[in-house]
Amino acid sequence: MPRLTFEDFKPGTAMTYGRYAVTLDEIRAYASEYDPQPMHLDAVAAQRSLLGGLAASGWHSCCMMMRMLTDSFLINTSCMGAPGVDEVRWLKPVYPGDVLTVRHTVLSSKVSQSKPDRGFVSFHFEMLNQNGDVVLDQRNAIMFGLRDHGGQA
Amino acid sequence: MPRLTFEDFKPGTAMTYGRYAVTLDEIRAYASEYDPQPMHLDAVAAQRSLLGGLAASGWHSCCMMMRMLTDSFLINTSCMGAPGVDEVRWLKPVYPGDVLTVRHTVLSSKVSQSKPDRGFVSFHFEMLNQNGDVVLDQRNAIMFGLRDHGGQA
Repeated sequence: MPRLTFEDFKPGTAMTYGRYAVTLDEIRAYASEYDPQPMHLDAVAAQRSLLGGLAASGWHSCCMMMRMLTDSFLINTSCMGAPGVDEVRWLKPVYPGDVLTVRHTVLSSKVSQSKPDRGFVSFHFEMLNQNGDVVLDQRNAIMFGLRDHGGQA
Repeated sequence: MPRLTFEDFKPGTAMTYGRYAVTLDEIRAYASEYDPQPMHLDAVAAQRSLLGGLAASGWHSCCMMMRMLTDSFLINTSCMGAPGVDEVRWLKPVYPGDVLTVRHTVLSSKVSQSKPDRGFVSFHFEMLNQNGDVVLDQRNAIMFGLRDHGGQA
């Protein structure tokens, strides 16, 4: 698969990729390590919470999406990192047994003013479950090398 | 320690808490699971990246902060969850050997219009390393039960 550089990300273009099967073991393992609130670890507390049952930590759902991004998308690009995240919305719980995919749309792009060998591409990411529900909505920019300036294409 | 409810979060008030010792093993373990880009796994690739050496995935740094929030703060509150994240900025790399803490400031608060037993508190979170550098800057709202409406105080 050819590598994509900054020039390849045209506003309005979209891609769909990834397949992530969510398990109860992983939900509990992540929560034990990074978000040990009872609603992510204990079935009774989860049932009484707004989640309505054991569900992944919101941060865990971001991590699952990042794994799909890395494996199916970034690894084939001149990605140089990201400055942060502009917005995350946890729209629906992510439950054990869910199978997730990612859809992204390019919102805009601009070459760095200080370093013309790279540029920033702003994306709208949506993570969907097997029913087509958007469970996670996220916007953030990613930095890519330019092909025309020796970006590692 | 008494539980804090929505009413306790006054705009302008601040808290500092947590202690998180970052290890190379944990950086590699997280990256293997959720962000397997070479710059987070391979010392040579990391040295050539903008990180300047093996450093935590930005998402991993969010997870580390969430762990401190849970252990030192949320566990003692009427927290009901969060709708998402308004902004994250990964300001400096998080390296093995770093020791992190959290400082937060309450920005604003408002009772839910549709459900008056709960309210949203907007926070500015900063994660600092042992040198006092802010490595992560984050803004997000968290939902808390009200004491005066039977919130689990």
